[in-house]
Amino acid sequence: MIDLHLIGIGTGNPDHLTAQAVAAMNHADLILLPRKGSAKSDLIDLRRDICARVLTGPTRIVEFDLPVRDASGTYLGAVNSWHDAIADAWNAQVTEHLPDGGKLALLVWGDPSLYDSTLRIAGRLKRWGMEIAVRVVPGITSIQALTAAHAIPLNPLAGPVTITTGRMLREHGWPKGAHTIVVMLDGGCAFEVLEPQGITIWWGAYLGMAHEALERGALADAGPRIATRRADLRARHGWIMDVYLMRKEQTDGA
Amino acid sequence: MIDLHLIGIGTGNPDHLTAQAVAAMNHADLILLPRKGSAKSDLIDLRRDICARVLTGPTRIVEFDLPVRDASGTYLGAVNSWHDAIADAWNAQVTEHLPDGGKLALLVWGDPSLYDSTLRIAGRLKRWGMEIAVRVVPGITSIQALTAAHAIPLNPLAGPVTITTGRMLREHGWPKGAHTIVVMLDGGCAFEVLEPQGITIWWGAYLGMAHEALERGALADAGPRIATRRADLRARHGWIMDVYLMRKEQTDGA
Repeated sequence: MIDLHLIGIGTGNPDHLTAQAVAAMNHADLILLPRKGSAKSDLIDLRRDICARVLTGPTRIVEFDLPVRDASGTYLGAVNSWHDAIADAWNAQVTEHLPDGGKLALLVWGDPSLYDSTLRIAGRLKRWGMEIAVRVVPGITSIQALTAAHAIPLNPLAGPVTITTGRMLREHGWPKGAHTIVVMLDGGCAFEVLEPQGITIWWGAYLGMAHEALERGALADAGPRIATRRADLRARHGWIMDVYLMRKEQTDGA
Repeated sequence: MIDLHLIGIGTGNPDHLTAQAVAAMNHADLILLPRKGSAKSDLIDLRRDICARVLTGPTRIVEFDLPVRDASGTYLGAVNSWHDAIADAWNAQVTEHLPDGGKLALLVWGDPSLYDSTLRIAGRLKRWGMEIAVRVVPGITSIQALTAAHAIPLNPLAGPVTITTGRMLREHGWPKGAHTIVVMLDGGCAFEVLEPQGITIWWGAYLGMAHEALERGALADAGPRIATRRADLRARHGWIMDVYLMRKEQTDGA
């Protein structure tokens, strides 16, 4: 029996860890840390630092290489195959390091519920016959780190918010009827597909980290500024993770 | 000069506090705790418990009576007048307890960005001429506590999510084009306005607390069960805070 804890660790600021996350990490027999290739080595360094900072007992830490996503085929097909490959990799680690079962923990960037694959991968292991109980420890998401950094509300007063992806924005434009949207998983600057009039943007990269970067303003002005700064930062650090919130003036009946 | 920290404290589980929240609470000269009337006295008790548990220094705690919202007039008009009255109440407390300025903290249920009025109330004080710097410390929201308790993802794979309110759902029905929605601030069971076929619901009340209550299932079956249980719990505890996530099968082109 594997008792799997998926632990949200926030966005890179170790102070975003909750007391519950610290307890769950220390409660684990084994923490698996995925290596994602050299470009994102900052991210595994951050996870190592977090472990070094909070672990007080005999929890073992094992690093493993995360399979690489195949860029061919459809997007969803590639993601599904990739999740299969990751489930295989977890399975191999569990077989080797917890052959008699035990408490396994995975540290999830942000919160395990939001644009993260670990819950779906754990679901595969269950379907494949692994006896596994899944528990989730919530963590601060990049959306919360963004709104905190800008000191802004997420929702308009008593109004709705749509959370979407760069891909959806690029393919379908501004979500119908939405006034406030948050865009995640944008590998570029999907906001460039929008007619910028009446839209305000609040953008953040490396949220919670020492090199956190913030921009805000009318999309017409801030958009090009963000595109330039994003390219510079990505070149300098070798990777970037960013998120942004946009609001539309409500004069267009949207 | 007032250095105001709005500190997200999660949904009632003291273990949801982040290290950043604990540090910000201890850094404050004054923490203001609003009293909301006897029905919700559990909530101020929880805030008192959190203070007792984490404060290690000389931070003062002052309780004050939160103004009552006027139920007459339009909803948004009433909310705006209520926020004015709360800003007045803060102002009175600051004048009395921090006459020479200092570090003020307010403990916000969940996260200060999500359906919470403290950022807007702080904005009023700024416009009224108070010298005030606002910092936000993110906290675990009831949405995260809900998805963690049910161990489910918030978003469909690579898909969007709409966060909305009970009032919006009641007035406008299922949000156009949405597949997954989260409903907050529902004073009743707004899901009852929906045609339940093809909708699954995950519901939670008192999330993170000792008397956490969860329900899940096809809306046709789970809806009536939730309505009954909600009424029972509300009668027993004198108040209820709940939130729910619903997903629609994607066969209807929505």
